[in-house]
Amino acid sequence: MSTDTAQFLEGLAARIGAAQVLREGDLSAWTVDWRRRWPGRALAVARPGTTEEVAAVMRLCAEHRVAVVPQGGNTGLVGASVPDASGTQLLLSLRRLDRVRAIDPANLTMTVEAGCVLQAAQQAAEASGLWLPLSLASEGSCTVGGNLATNAGGTQVLRHGNARELCLGLEVVTPAGEIWDGLSGLRKDNTGYDLRHLYIGSEGTLGVITAAVMKLQPQPAATRTALAACDSLEACVALLRLARGQAGDALTGFEVIGRHALSLVARHFPQIPQPLPACAWTVLMELSDSEGEAHAQGLLEALLARALSAGTIQDAAVAQSLAQSRAMWQLRESVSAAQSAEGLNIKHDIGLPVSAIPEFVARTDAALRTRWPGVRPVTFGHLGDGNLHYNVQAPEGEDPKRFLAEQEDAVNTLVHDAVQAHRGTISAEHGIGRLKRDELQRRKSPVALALMRSIKQALDPEGRMNPDRMLPAD
Amino acid sequence: MSTDTAQFLEGLAARIGAAQVLREGDLSAWTVDWRRRWPGRALAVARPGTTEEVAAVMRLCAEHRVAVVPQGGNTGLVGASVPDASGTQLLLSLRRLDRVRAIDPANLTMTVEAGCVLQAAQQAAEASGLWLPLSLASEGSCTVGGNLATNAGGTQVLRHGNARELCLGLEVVTPAGEIWDGLSGLRKDNTGYDLRHLYIGSEGTLGVITAAVMKLQPQPAATRTALAACDSLEACVALLRLARGQAGDALTGFEVIGRHALSLVARHFPQIPQPLPACAWTVLMELSDSEGEAHAQGLLEALLARALSAGTIQDAAVAQSLAQSRAMWQLRESVSAAQSAEGLNIKHDIGLPVSAIPEFVARTDAALRTRWPGVRPVTFGHLGDGNLHYNVQAPEGEDPKRFLAEQEDAVNTLVHDAVQAHRGTISAEHGIGRLKRDELQRRKSPVALALMRSIKQALDPEGRMNPDRMLPAD
Repeated sequence: MSTDTAQFLEGLAARIGAAQVLREGDLSAWTVDWRRRWPGRALAVARPGTTEEVAAVMRLCAEHRVAVVPQGGNTGLVGASVPDASGTQLLLSLRRLDRVRAIDPANLTMTVEAGCVLQAAQQAAEASGLWLPLSLASEGSCTVGGNLATNAGGTQVLRHGNARELCLGLEVVTPAGEIWDGLSGLRKDNTGYDLRHLYIGSEGTLGVITAAVMKLQPQPAATRTALAACDSLEACVALLRLARGQAGDALTGFEVIGRHALSLVARHFPQIPQPLPACAWTVLMELSDSEGEAHAQGLLEALLARALSAGTIQDAAVAQSLAQSRAMWQLRESVSAAQSAEGLNIKHDIGLPVSAIPEFVARTDAALRTRWPGVRPVTFGHLGDGNLHYNVQAPEGEDPKRFLAEQEDAVNTLVHDAVQAHRGTISAEHGIGRLKRDELQRRKSPVALALMRSIKQALDPEGRMNPDRMLPAD
Repeated sequence: MSTDTAQFLEGLAARIGAAQVLREGDLSAWTVDWRRRWPGRALAVARPGTTEEVAAVMRLCAEHRVAVVPQGGNTGLVGASVPDASGTQLLLSLRRLDRVRAIDPANLTMTVEAGCVLQAAQQAAEASGLWLPLSLASEGSCTVGGNLATNAGGTQVLRHGNARELCLGLEVVTPAGEIWDGLSGLRKDNTGYDLRHLYIGSEGTLGVITAAVMKLQPQPAATRTALAACDSLEACVALLRLARGQAGDALTGFEVIGRHALSLVARHFPQIPQPLPACAWTVLMELSDSEGEAHAQGLLEALLARALSAGTIQDAAVAQSLAQSRAMWQLRESVSAAQSAEGLNIKHDIGLPVSAIPEFVARTDAALRTRWPGVRPVTFGHLGDGNLHYNVQAPEGEDPKRFLAEQEDAVNTLVHDAVQAHRGTISAEHGIGRLKRDELQRRKSPVALALMRSIKQALDPEGRMNPDRMLPAD
């Protein structure tokens, strides 16, 4: 170990306590991402307990020119939250900053630290009779700071937006170790550049989010779920438009599952009831209501009746109990596990204008099948947000591993070319990190990339914040 | 005229046509703000007609190192949209870029050029059966580009947010004359730093917005308005919370008018009906409903009945016709004109956490009255957004002009100190420009100001974009 490294580690221990600087034993919980695609090695794992300690660590890193990888719950899917293999990067875990600092019911806001697990933040809001409308599969282990650093999406985006739209203010520690207290609970504030939105979604490459003010909502009085059968994606889009017109803001969920995706659920999870006969596209709709059960039920039934008589849907089933409603969501949420059980596939987290989705799927399905006869697209996702998980499975009988090894790049190119032609995005909710860093260089406009590099250079001139993620290191 | 200036002007004419370069005659429509506080003089007024022409003008300005002041409808209140008195700045009018490029009903978006007047954009949405929920007093002359450059607020913020929250994508010309095509119609896109939110609210200091993709909504089926009488601001805040819980997203307006402000309307506009007896605070509530008139009426009446029986409100009047509803809004919108008729006062456009408003008003009223006995705060605004227009009128009988001349700075300091103590903002919706540039330097944290300067330096290294607005020129 060099003298400088030894001094750095001593300095760390002096600032946050030796017990919070980890170097020995199994550190894989911090150094390996949960899909185990990017096993890394850290100079050390530092676990500060307060914003001031984070700032002290960052000042020390600036002094010693140490690169920093901030981490929340380490549930990211793109390799942005783990150190590289060099052993020179400090893994800065925010998990000990886990307090809910304040809840302000009259202002409908909560101030929460970055390391607070999302579910704990949800529960704190609930204990005050309120609702934090951010919900995703990893909510039991992801953190609010990570949700903001990656602008997480999830199941409530249709009405409440992404993590970005739920955040009113931030506290951030800069690469130089200064604290920006931007913990504003204001809905309107026109006093200069919006620094908040620059840090949100920046994947730890500009600074360290240590706390945030999140918007809350009153709890809905009732929630109602239904499944509907459509014979085309055009019909699904028409149903979405009808539902928005009829139910307005009460429409809080609009998910779609393609026939093949649903058949995988039937094959691997036969115990989950499928209340509708097989159809081309199954829509899951959710209404949330401020008035009550009866009103929500009436609204949903009127909407479905109208869609049936217009021929927009072929069939429908309304959940009659909470258990039935949960089973419907389980259908939707089991698609991922069902496709894993079926074998590896090539995943795409794409976003498109809703209006472009039917044409995109028709053309891209056809192009894939022409090039790889028998190939099976597994198509499902958040149709209301324009976000599809458009995954591509090897033809029946072909070895999925070999198909991936040989064809993944070509499949990605075909799919992302089609996305670009329809003015879509190659990453709707998962981010860039290391997984899509090089693809972003190919897909984003040179002007946008140049602007991004200017901003990176301005706020992290030494390139020490999560280097080589999102943008390639120079 | 220097040779360089002559060459620059020739170059301008060559790029956009001599008829679109104005130097002679009365140019005050472009060079003087509409409150006539900052009369300026331009090197020329350039009126490009396309994004490509804007880019060509910007490249020419870069070559000749000419400073640029972008302008939409020139309705700003803070001196950000007019040239200074030097005669060296190019006034770049975006007004000829006024097309609605596309409306996508299935995606609920419209693509509109920066110079399109807001009302024209609203009407285009309406013609497609949709709604652009951005509405403010100057909508007949302000432009969408200006709305975005200043992050305009208005009367629909409670439910739909500021201009920022309604924008999905931008087209921007950089100071070097490059075009960033970020005209995305996506609800989810996690591919790098959010450049859009950096330009929104930047008051033309980073680049020129030339077009935008705006979110649309289905038109509400019914809108209902009511007035309610509260005996304290605490009661108003309680009513807001109750209304949010009962009506959920149907609550689209929550405005408040103090007794003195309303008495000025009675004095100067006696023809506007005041359906409630005088009370401490009058609340205007608006519900927008996707179901219909009867449902909206029922929702509003149930809410008011509950508030009456809980003692939260003392009295209420529900508009029974569109005419009555308009008259209620007229009451609210006449406060500005009534206070002008009464004489000059000292204006503050402040934002606070909603929960802090009662204490802020009580303490600040008391502090003002202690220091200036008889002084009259004119308090009204968008309570649901935490945005108050907290204006201070000279004591009865005192000359308002003299009071302003002698006391304005001291009044501002007292009010803004109180705002800061309650974690509020000195500019909720009007922006900074020249009016609050120096005050911002005193009020914003040094860390935030340093971050803002870094960003300005990164994106406009020569400081030619709207110099000396928002941030002082070096």
